Amino acid sequence: MLSELDLSQKIKKKEYEEIMADLRIKLGELQREAKLLNIPIMLVFEGWGASGKGTLINELILPLDPRGFNVYTTNYLNQDEMMRPFLWRFWVKTPAKGRIAIFEKSWYRRTLVERIDNDIEGNEIKSTFEDINSFERQLSDDGNIIMKFFIHISKEKQKERFLELESNPSTAWRVTKDDWKHHEQYEKYIKITEEMIEKTDKDYAPWTIIEGNDRKFAEVKVFTSIILNLENAINAAKEKAEAPSTSSILQNNTQCNGDNLVKSSILRNIDLSVSISKEEYKEKLKKYQNKMRVIEHELYTRRIPVVIVYEGWDAAGKGGNIKRITENLDPRGYQVVPIAAPNVVEKSHHYLWRFWNEFPKAGHITIFDRSWYGRVLVERVEGFCSYEEWNRAYKEINEMEEQFINFGAVVIKFWLQIDKDEQLARFNERMNTPEKQWKITDEDWRNREKWERYEDAANDMLIKTSTTRAPWTIIESNSKMYSRIKALKTVIDAIEKKI
Amino acid sequence: MLSELDLSQKIKKKEYEEIMADLRIKLGELQREAKLLNIPIMLVFEGWGASGKGTLINELILPLDPRGFNVYTTNYLNQDEMMRPFLWRFWVKTPAKGRIAIFEKSWYRRTLVERIDNDIEGNEIKSTFEDINSFERQLSDDGNIIMKFFIHISKEKQKERFLELESNPSTAWRVTKDDWKHHEQYEKYIKITEEMIEKTDKDYAPWTIIEGNDRKFAEVKVFTSIILNLENAINAAKEKAEAPSTSSILQNNTQCNGDNLVKSSILRNIDLSVSISKEEYKEKLKKYQNKMRVIEHELYTRRIPVVIVYEGWDAAGKGGNIKRITENLDPRGYQVVPIAAPNVVEKSHHYLWRFWNEFPKAGHITIFDRSWYGRVLVERVEGFCSYEEWNRAYKEINEMEEQFINFGAVVIKFWLQIDKDEQLARFNERMNTPEKQWKITDEDWRNREKWERYEDAANDMLIKTSTTRAPWTIIESNSKMYSRIKALKTVIDAIEKKI
Repeated sequence: MLSELDLSQKIKKKEYEEIMADLRIKLGELQREAKLLNIPIMLVFEGWGASGKGTLINELILPLDPRGFNVYTTNYLNQDEMMRPFLWRFWVKTPAKGRIAIFEKSWYRRTLVERIDNDIEGNEIKSTFEDINSFERQLSDDGNIIMKFFIHISKEKQKERFLELESNPSTAWRVTKDDWKHHEQYEKYIKITEEMIEKTDKDYAPWTIIEGNDRKFAEVKVFTSIILNLENAINAAKEKAEAPSTSSILQNNTQCNGDNLVKSSILRNIDLSVSISKEEYKEKLKKYQNKMRVIEHELYTRRIPVVIVYEGWDAAGKGGNIKRITENLDPRGYQVVPIAAPNVVEKSHHYLWRFWNEFPKAGHITIFDRSWYGRVLVERVEGFCSYEEWNRAYKEINEMEEQFINFGAVVIKFWLQIDKDEQLARFNERMNTPEKQWKITDEDWRNREKWERYEDAANDMLIKTSTTRAPWTIIESNSKMYSRIKALKTVIDAIEKKI
Repeated sequence: MLSELDLSQKIKKKEYEEIMADLRIKLGELQREAKLLNIPIMLVFEGWGASGKGTLINELILPLDPRGFNVYTTNYLNQDEMMRPFLWRFWVKTPAKGRIAIFEKSWYRRTLVERIDNDIEGNEIKSTFEDINSFERQLSDDGNIIMKFFIHISKEKQKERFLELESNPSTAWRVTKDDWKHHEQYEKYIKITEEMIEKTDKDYAPWTIIEGNDRKFAEVKVFTSIILNLENAINAAKEKAEAPSTSSILQNNTQCNGDNLVKSSILRNIDLSVSISKEEYKEKLKKYQNKMRVIEHELYTRRIPVVIVYEGWDAAGKGGNIKRITENLDPRGYQVVPIAAPNVVEKSHHYLWRFWNEFPKAGHITIFDRSWYGRVLVERVEGFCSYEEWNRAYKEINEMEEQFINFGAVVIKFWLQIDKDEQLARFNERMNTPEKQWKITDEDWRNREKWERYEDAANDMLIKTSTTRAPWTIIESNSKMYSRIKALKTVIDAIEKKI
């Protein structure tokens, strides 16, 4: 999902200066508190060449007490390091209690540049991810706060910065041949970076992706992330030390200045103006629906199960879209499962239990009209589960889908995206059309009021659960016709790829 | 370590009946409490054919309220199950809150009989272990108490029971051709069972190995394990519900009737009478020490690091043993690291940090005189770390050693075993020999008083950290000469295997 991130976000100079003055003071305070509480902190900075890691770290250490931190730059292995397991050089640098270790590049080097240079693949890359996860988990279990940042810039921005550096004789040396080589391999690096984040984004050591095209935006986002995380960790440590009452720790309700300005956004980056002519629609609809019928038969003979997930805004057109998928299918081969709030029996089990129950038989298609993603959408926004619960759900969901895929299933996930105006128009149309009034409830209007919070949740979901093998497809749905054709086409392509 | 377990332990009928009367009442009470607290419980029984799983489960459910549990027997897949991912049939059977699900055979079938029948190896078995671990972790995170029992009997005992069943017409049908086939493959099954336990023994879903040769012993051990685990879980749940004070939860200090009778024992099973003549000793010592010198050179040219760990009782002869290993070596190629209590700097880091620091360069040998295993021995027994900390250390240690081995290291671990009388004799000799008096301190005498607790800790350690790739070697050390030769031989064999 890196490529879909909105890199155009900016913060104005005046606003930046006001916010940063606050954030610097806050960060200094938190360092002192963490020191008193003996909390060790590890900050990892990875990112593209010329994405500004060095500058960010410089800004970061300005407000810190210099006796309390170390900055380590990770580069080629030296002689001593080559003769030890790859995590050795990081183990020996883990911070003492109360200190901060800042890594400019890190153990992730092995999953990025070394992966490509030394062709680390298959079991070797798999065990590298496992080693990294156990390294971070062991340190976290021992009380370390671990935060990881990936500074993301676009290919164009990187080129622009390289050229700028080269144009100045005093900085030209900073751009190497290797840098240009990596620039050429940008798309390849995107892919392995996404995989790295997917495999190592853990609740105990989360990645934060920093949109780095605007340096001020990046800086505010790094500062606010660190401050919010530290504040939570420090509160948790304090509560544990005194009379603990777990509930409040888990709410993660701390806030800080500027926090609202630096949300990751995929959805705001979507071009919703795309559409399709009625003729093209009719023609393609017929063609694809016929194709679906053939494919359904093929799936059955080959015993391939298919799971299709529909998520999206109220009135985004999920129902109509699903109808177009199934219209021409043999009803014995598919099932549509609408997901509402769990009933009493479902509530007495693990939240994934009811979805496991509905897993299609090999050779069948199950379409979920809303799904397990409710855990990180409605349940998160409405507070039906705790911060800890929805936060760990990303991993649980990725694991479940991975198991489906390992069994041979095709997993297709749609997010139907419309904008707020389009939703309003559709709500009003429903209100004013007698036969559609059943489709609109007070709850829909209430949810609409929480648009921004649902959008945050959806963005996080898209970033954290769009995996290599089970990616999300965002469907531009302001045009219903466009939306239906794109969904049909995506289903057909995914299944044909499998077949 | 399964083969080394002491299967000769028995409980007398009268004692058994007294204890069981208590345990049954206790178990019934705990079921009711768990129900009130809405805690779901999963009990898994795996084990050899004719190990008595069925009988055990029958005994187990007698004191339970029949409205509160289900028993599931896992056998060949039915049509419906074949068409779903392998965990599907277990997901749909996960217990509702407050209920108990008992599995006679389980998802582990796939790592045992199905593994051999369908030749599941390589990446497939690896991902099976991963899927199982995430399944159990997800359920545990959601509040499930998961306990897993492996009922272990000897090959001879299995044969005896099969023949007994066959000799009676009414039970003869219970012994199948497959049973006899598996009996022939006993050693193969031992190996994959050990691997299964190694890969899936987690703090959130621990395995308990039940010595099953004596049915009464097995029954008491199953009951006490369940009772102790449940009591801890229920106390934890209660404390969490009220004003929680984490400390007491983590001490695991509950006890129950009969608990002391059913300890797993490897060490009590060791034949310490083995010895060696002085002539043989001299001859072999010379031979092996010369060999070591050659091997040291070989290691250096091949850049293989070697880690040797010495653990064992005070006065078991670690020092003299290490001396014989190194006597003939080039001192530039090895290092002996004596491990005492951590200093201030070491205490301010993760407990594994100082051992990572001492990892040998490729081509070198490091001998640890005591080691990271202090975490699960002295730190456990003396209460220097919490129950939670030493309990999670088994996994952390296994992970660290796995990383060493993946890097290409040879990891050799010795437990030097002597009995209590031999220790006393050596202590007294030290007291009475002026030049040896420095070797004996008040602390040694104090530790001696805690012999049984150290023995429990060592047994657990041997069971939980003897992995396929980094197994423990127990050295019978009542005879110092025997001990030294066995250690030298083991080191040479392990390194030659690698070379």
